[in-house]
Amino acid sequence: MLPPQWKNVFIPAWFSEDFPLLDYNASLFDNSQILQAEIVLKSKACCLAGRPFVDGVFEYVGCKVEWLYSEGSWIERPSDQERLPIAIISGSSAGILQGERIALNVLARCTAVATVTRRCLNMLVGYTGRVAATRKTTPGFRLMEKYAVAVGGGDPHRPDSGSSLIMLKDNHLEILKTQLGLDVKAAVIKARQVASFTAKVECECRNLEEALLAAEGGADIVMIDNATVEQANAWLPIIREKHPSLFIEVSGGITEASIQAYAAAKPDAISLGSITQAPGRIDFSLNVQ
Amino acid sequence: MLPPQWKNVFIPAWFSEDFPLLDYNASLFDNSQILQAEIVLKSKACCLAGRPFVDGVFEYVGCKVEWLYSEGSWIERPSDQERLPIAIISGSSAGILQGERIALNVLARCTAVATVTRRCLNMLVGYTGRVAATRKTTPGFRLMEKYAVAVGGGDPHRPDSGSSLIMLKDNHLEILKTQLGLDVKAAVIKARQVASFTAKVECECRNLEEALLAAEGGADIVMIDNATVEQANAWLPIIREKHPSLFIEVSGGITEASIQAYAAAKPDAISLGSITQAPGRIDFSLNVQ
Amino acid sequence: MLPPQWKNVFIPAWFSEDFPLLDYNASLFDNSQILQAEIVLKSKACCLAGRPFVDGVFEYVGCKVEWLYSEGSWIERPSDQERLPIAIISGSSAGILQGERIALNVLARCTAVATVTRRCLNMLVGYTGRVAATRKTTPGFRLMEKYAVAVGGGDPHRPDSGSSLIMLKDNHLEILKTQLGLDVKAAVIKARQVASFTAKVECECRNLEEALLAAEGGADIVMIDNATVEQANAWLPIIREKHPSLFIEVSGGITEASIQAYAAAKPDAISLGSITQAPGRIDFSLNVQ
Amino acid sequence: MLPPQWKNVFIPAWFSEDFPLLDYNASLFDNSQILQAEIVLKSKACCLAGRPFVDGVFEYVGCKVEWLYSEGSWIERPSDQERLPIAIISGSSAGILQGERIALNVLARCTAVATVTRRCLNMLVGYTGRVAATRKTTPGFRLMEKYAVAVGGGDPHRPDSGSSLIMLKDNHLEILKTQLGLDVKAAVIKARQVASFTAKVECECRNLEEALLAAEGGADIVMIDNATVEQANAWLPIIREKHPSLFIEVSGGITEASIQAYAAAKPDAISLGSITQAPGRIDFSLNVQ
Amino acid sequence: MLPPQWKNVFIPAWFSEDFPLLDYNASLFDNSQILQAEIVLKSKACCLAGRPFVDGVFEYVGCKVEWLYSEGSWIERPSDQERLPIAIISGSSAGILQGERIALNVLARCTAVATVTRRCLNMLVGYTGRVAATRKTTPGFRLMEKYAVAVGGGDPHRPDSGSSLIMLKDNHLEILKTQLGLDVKAAVIKARQVASFTAKVECECRNLEEALLAAEGGADIVMIDNATVEQANAWLPIIREKHPSLFIEVSGGITEASIQAYAAAKPDAISLGSITQAPGRIDFSLNVQ
Amino acid sequence: MLPPQWKNVFIPAWFSEDFPLLDYNASLFDNSQILQAEIVLKSKACCLAGRPFVDGVFEYVGCKVEWLYSEGSWIERPSDQERLPIAIISGSSAGILQGERIALNVLARCTAVATVTRRCLNMLVGYTGRVAATRKTTPGFRLMEKYAVAVGGGDPHRPDSGSSLIMLKDNHLEILKTQLGLDVKAAVIKARQVASFTAKVECECRNLEEALLAAEGGADIVMIDNATVEQANAWLPIIREKHPSLFIEVSGGITEASIQAYAAAKPDAISLGSITQAPGRIDFSLNVQ
Repeated sequence: MLPPQWKNVFIPAWFSEDFPLLDYNASLFDNSQILQAEIVLKSKACCLAGRPFVDGVFEYVGCKVEWLYSEGSWIERPSDQERLPIAIISGSSAGILQGERIALNVLARCTAVATVTRRCLNMLVGYTGRVAATRKTTPGFRLMEKYAVAVGGGDPHRPDSGSSLIMLKDNHLEILKTQLGLDVKAAVIKARQVASFTAKVECECRNLEEALLAAEGGADIVMIDNATVEQANAWLPIIREKHPSLFIEVSGGITEASIQAYAAAKPDAISLGSITQAPGRIDFSLNVQ
Repeated sequence: MLPPQWKNVFIPAWFSEDFPLLDYNASLFDNSQILQAEIVLKSKACCLAGRPFVDGVFEYVGCKVEWLYSEGSWIERPSDQERLPIAIISGSSAGILQGERIALNVLARCTAVATVTRRCLNMLVGYTGRVAATRKTTPGFRLMEKYAVAVGGGDPHRPDSGSSLIMLKDNHLEILKTQLGLDVKAAVIKARQVASFTAKVECECRNLEEALLAAEGGADIVMIDNATVEQANAWLPIIREKHPSLFIEVSGGITEASIQAYAAAKPDAISLGSITQAPGRIDFSLNVQ
Repeated sequence: MLPPQWKNVFIPAWFSEDFPLLDYNASLFDNSQILQAEIVLKSKACCLAGRPFVDGVFEYVGCKVEWLYSEGSWIERPSDQERLPIAIISGSSAGILQGERIALNVLARCTAVATVTRRCLNMLVGYTGRVAATRKTTPGFRLMEKYAVAVGGGDPHRPDSGSSLIMLKDNHLEILKTQLGLDVKAAVIKARQVASFTAKVECECRNLEEALLAAEGGADIVMIDNATVEQANAWLPIIREKHPSLFIEVSGGITEASIQAYAAAKPDAISLGSITQAPGRIDFSLNVQ
Repeated sequence: MLPPQWKNVFIPAWFSEDFPLLDYNASLFDNSQILQAEIVLKSKACCLAGRPFVDGVFEYVGCKVEWLYSEGSWIERPSDQERLPIAIISGSSAGILQGERIALNVLARCTAVATVTRRCLNMLVGYTGRVAATRKTTPGFRLMEKYAVAVGGGDPHRPDSGSSLIMLKDNHLEILKTQLGLDVKAAVIKARQVASFTAKVECECRNLEEALLAAEGGADIVMIDNATVEQANAWLPIIREKHPSLFIEVSGGITEASIQAYAAAKPDAISLGSITQAPGRIDFSLNVQ
Repeated sequence: MLPPQWKNVFIPAWFSEDFPLLDYNASLFDNSQILQAEIVLKSKACCLAGRPFVDGVFEYVGCKVEWLYSEGSWIERPSDQERLPIAIISGSSAGILQGERIALNVLARCTAVATVTRRCLNMLVGYTGRVAATRKTTPGFRLMEKYAVAVGGGDPHRPDSGSSLIMLKDNHLEILKTQLGLDVKAAVIKARQVASFTAKVECECRNLEEALLAAEGGADIVMIDNATVEQANAWLPIIREKHPSLFIEVSGGITEASIQAYAAAKPDAISLGSITQAPGRIDFSLNVQ
Repeated sequence: MLPPQWKNVFIPAWFSEDFPLLDYNASLFDNSQILQAEIVLKSKACCLAGRPFVDGVFEYVGCKVEWLYSEGSWIERPSDQERLPIAIISGSSAGILQGERIALNVLARCTAVATVTRRCLNMLVGYTGRVAATRKTTPGFRLMEKYAVAVGGGDPHRPDSGSSLIMLKDNHLEILKTQLGLDVKAAVIKARQVASFTAKVECECRNLEEALLAAEGGADIVMIDNATVEQANAWLPIIREKHPSLFIEVSGGITEASIQAYAAAKPDAISLGSITQAPGRIDFSLNVQ
């Protein structure tokens, strides 16, 4: 699922950030000896994500990684164990220590994103739609965050602005109305015209009326933005009745706390900025043995 | 405080991530008209950080930014106002919308980091030491996160591994003991030898004994790692008595919840991985007017 | 429509290719004098495309460009005139001559692509579907070629593989059949599952049966590949009857010579690899005055 | 003949263009199985060029390529065979499909350039001079196009502007005349002075008089530009008589259709912009077996 | 000691500089044969430095390097031998010749830097302080030069400006005095405040008074700049008496000729811009056997 | 003479090297004030070179540079003046201090190269040939060093290996002899064949016999390598008599001390590796006023 060039694009850049010139630490050790180290989980539970990045980082410094859990597996640390081993690294002292912080930083972030995604899904028993991310990602780190959403079982949503899915958001609609006098339906039609037919058109709607107009305009996806649970429950049946094959997404301020309530309205997708923007913290550390 | 080349290094890369090929959205609008848009704060309060990045992003697409608050100011949204304007953007429709998501992503992250940093500091009335970050940053995004720590009033801590501060962490000490039979004191002496005299040597210590050995070895900074509040309170006076000019840092699992307790021991610095790794979420949006 | 970062990404790289070290030519002239030069069209007719690239190249070397024709306009050179001026460049001798070849190379390629696209469209009177490109572009130059398709009035088709439109081509179908025993319908369903809901799924079909299966599987776009005109005429009505809202593309070996015949079957889109891969040649030159 | 760094410079960039973020296609398959695929020639005949690029692309995604024809060989597809296998690829489904389009795009372009070059040479029985390219190449893709010219048996001509061969073209001569009052002879002498002695000086001449002046000025190469066949036939003997060791190139609007006529004048080189700018199309495809 | 990413950062860039397009030389040879070549020292003596760079360059073009001397060893060429072999390269003709000049250029520079460093150290019998470099390095080549200083036995000094050691130089002090009315002591205190506690603060002092003020301000390092030997001898004891644990560096115009005299004052470090800026020349060549 | 893209290629990279993360120094000052600073020459005399690089560096940090001497001028510092101002910089404190070291490092290196070049030329009264550099340059810094040679009045020699001038060096000749049985004449003929006609062929010759063979083979340039002055004096007249229009270069171990003696033999060019590899040191500093 990762693009072929990811290692060349990211790994040297990540090391350049942490090692801008000489590495004096590497001179402390006898680097001809091969050591082993464990990556251990310090948090209570997680959905493991980021293995390829950890592998890439450690390979780059001549180390090997043996994983004790598969990517995407749900891991719970027994309560009587302070730290649960999840991987074994083998390599030189310099290699292990040069890779340590970069690998843990990526692993911690990916696993945090996958974990919150998985927790959301686990809450939604019987829900057959998707739990999706947004473009609220860390600049320069989107690939890792979107990948982690997928590992967690979520839908990464559109990769970029402009070239793939065309999304008419509140600002787009506002400008099209002011500048060109277009209502939501007309805006959707215009978006379809300027974009390639290979791209879907999605329209962000603030109320039922806009949603119906967007559907009439031929939107592939209608996104109900910032609706209350009550509104979502009231509007979706009406939209579905008129547009049974329409794909309906709900979004806007939804969190782990409220996702179950929204799922009850049976949207095709629920998207949350928070799963990439503030997924909480999963803590790992690395211990030389 | 930002390095001169930051715009060339980051801005085109951030846009390449969000606009890998054509931008169909830009064709929707009459881009000769100049619009205005507001960046609004949706969270309750924050310490604003990231203005130069927002400026850089919008300048890149031909827009101007006028700020209503200065960098580092503490902003509280009145409870009767849903969204508080903090900046005005002027530019073409395409420019504003191309910059929107990138600018908000950086702003949200920087402000979240600065806000948690500032909240920590505000709790520590009478504490004269530093609240510091770690290297637990997002790979490729460290500059923005370390900068935000500084804006929040914190200490960014060392910029990298290897070239600036030499830190002997648990793994370094373990390897030096196993490979070369060095105790903590000898390890500090060796670190001093292999590093340039221009770099400080810091030693992470698990207990009082190690701390005293590190100080005897001439460490510039002794870092008490993973101590309980009780341990910190017990150990610091003993260390201070023997080594009055030593710089003492406490670290390891400290959070906003526990920082006050640790500050009572009067360390010279308290460092927290969480302020960059999981600072929580500050929410902004951009509204075209 | 061009992404904000295109100048930083392409312009210095293009100049590095043509000026790997010193430029002795620049020392021949008095570069304090401002000269004027014309870009002239030497071919009979063209659809002008590439103005922003020419502007970017010449701005980079301190020159200004004044265009006599708008982007996308159809220009015919009077038969009694050998060379038709289309733009005036002002700048130093060194600037004009450093930019000349790069600017003309981009302009010639873009204009050739736009011209063949426009010629195809002009042939298809009454046809309301799209004339589209493919991913058969020059590696590293796709943005310019896809942009030129759009300027010519065509549809650039999907920007990339993997992240935007998911296209099941003959090889994908073959592998899914062999490895997993999936027929075309099942393959489309699986593609829908693994991809984000924000991406369309297109299926390349070799015959009517596959097309119907793909449509049943829920493909957003069915692409009839390598059909004869007769087959296209026979199959499309059958598919349309069963799946009236399906988007149907025809592709495979279609050229300017055969496009009219295929358009008669009224597909929603006709895509041609040749318009980017071998668009023919439009010749320009630059003459200092 | 390719520079050592070409793989690092081009391959990741080509993949970044086609795979800007996640690759959903790769998730469709069982990538532990090794498949075979054929690259087949669909055009009637070609001079094969681009093997190292295809190898580099497929190696990058973990595949191996076995070629059935050597680089530069002339391949004719039997009329009773629709597609002629020219190479066998082995690798995972994801690898083969990720490399497919990039590899074919480079191969098709290189082979088209080599093929037109070879066809020109094959026409010129008895001609002992060179058939050469120009700088009319695709920006960012010059290496591949110049290499293909060489594979076809042609001469790639100068690699760049400014640092290697110094060419005085019509615009240079015009400016030197206007600014400094230099005639062609004086211009050549000045070019020799400002350039390193390691670079040849070539002068583009519009007529016999200019050619003789350039030769008198000591030009290493005189290029007769835009002459008719008659002019070329008339002028070359006169120039040769006076300057028997001078290297004479003819150029300007020469194509496959006219190259034989120009060769009769026995220039040392005939250069054609068209062989890189619009070489026609050679079609390949890749079929999984 | 080298950062993990150095090969990816430097090697392709170095080859791009020497091989901007095609390499005709490589076509001269039968590159399937494996040859051997020697790197020989032509200078009288040297401290060998740069082996990893030579290895990296030759590995990149498929060659192997066998060294006859270890990194950092002092090598003297017997007077009756014109050229002393120091390494054996094995590989193809093209590989050896493509790597030759780049490898020798790096090796010659690194070895020159290490050699002058070592010569300085060898002169200073009984001196226990450090011989250090400065930031007077070749832009883009600092890593290699700082590394060579370390190989020679010297101290590379600070890696950068701004992020690691904070050095208050004459200009900083001048501005702080003029703008803010700060004396040297106050300037040091302010520097400590604005910088992270992880960075040392060094103060460049022009006289004894400034040195004492800097020490009082808490500078980690006081650097006596441009003092005569007499001044150094007079001032250091006075400073040491008041500030026994202070680190004192002398710098400014010191060369191999004067370093012994300065060492007599027993500073903790002597730094010389000349060892990186003009280390003299060590000559190597490569001979195919 | 500099390529258009040089600023984008070098300036951000140079600053990234010196400012890898935050710049604490910049926070010391009131950066709204505009200061002035002088660049002063501390060496006795120099040929000024590198102005465009200094301009580029300071412009990048918002400063302006006013020069008191033109590029290439010979500057002598009066003996009664310790430091001679050569340029005035205006800008903020942060800007001036961020640019200082980078600008001085480039200026010092360029000026040292230009100065030794100019000194050589000044010694050679009556000599009409060229004093040339080689490829013995600092990797990644060749442009600056070759440019400085030109400013000093020298000839930069070939820019690269492989694409421009084809030089048969001792190793090439040795391999061609061993592998293919080619003598020097045959080697030159083969080189001419594999290279583009746009490239000169130069042959490095160890003795008179080789030189004559190279000339017979049609070499554009014969380079007499490592000859003594006596040999040069003896061989050149013999070669010139037989090949009056041949370009003859002498090279190999020539320095400022011996260049006059070699010039007496009236070669067309004398090339010296030492002028770029160890040009000696020219010292500048920057003083805020």
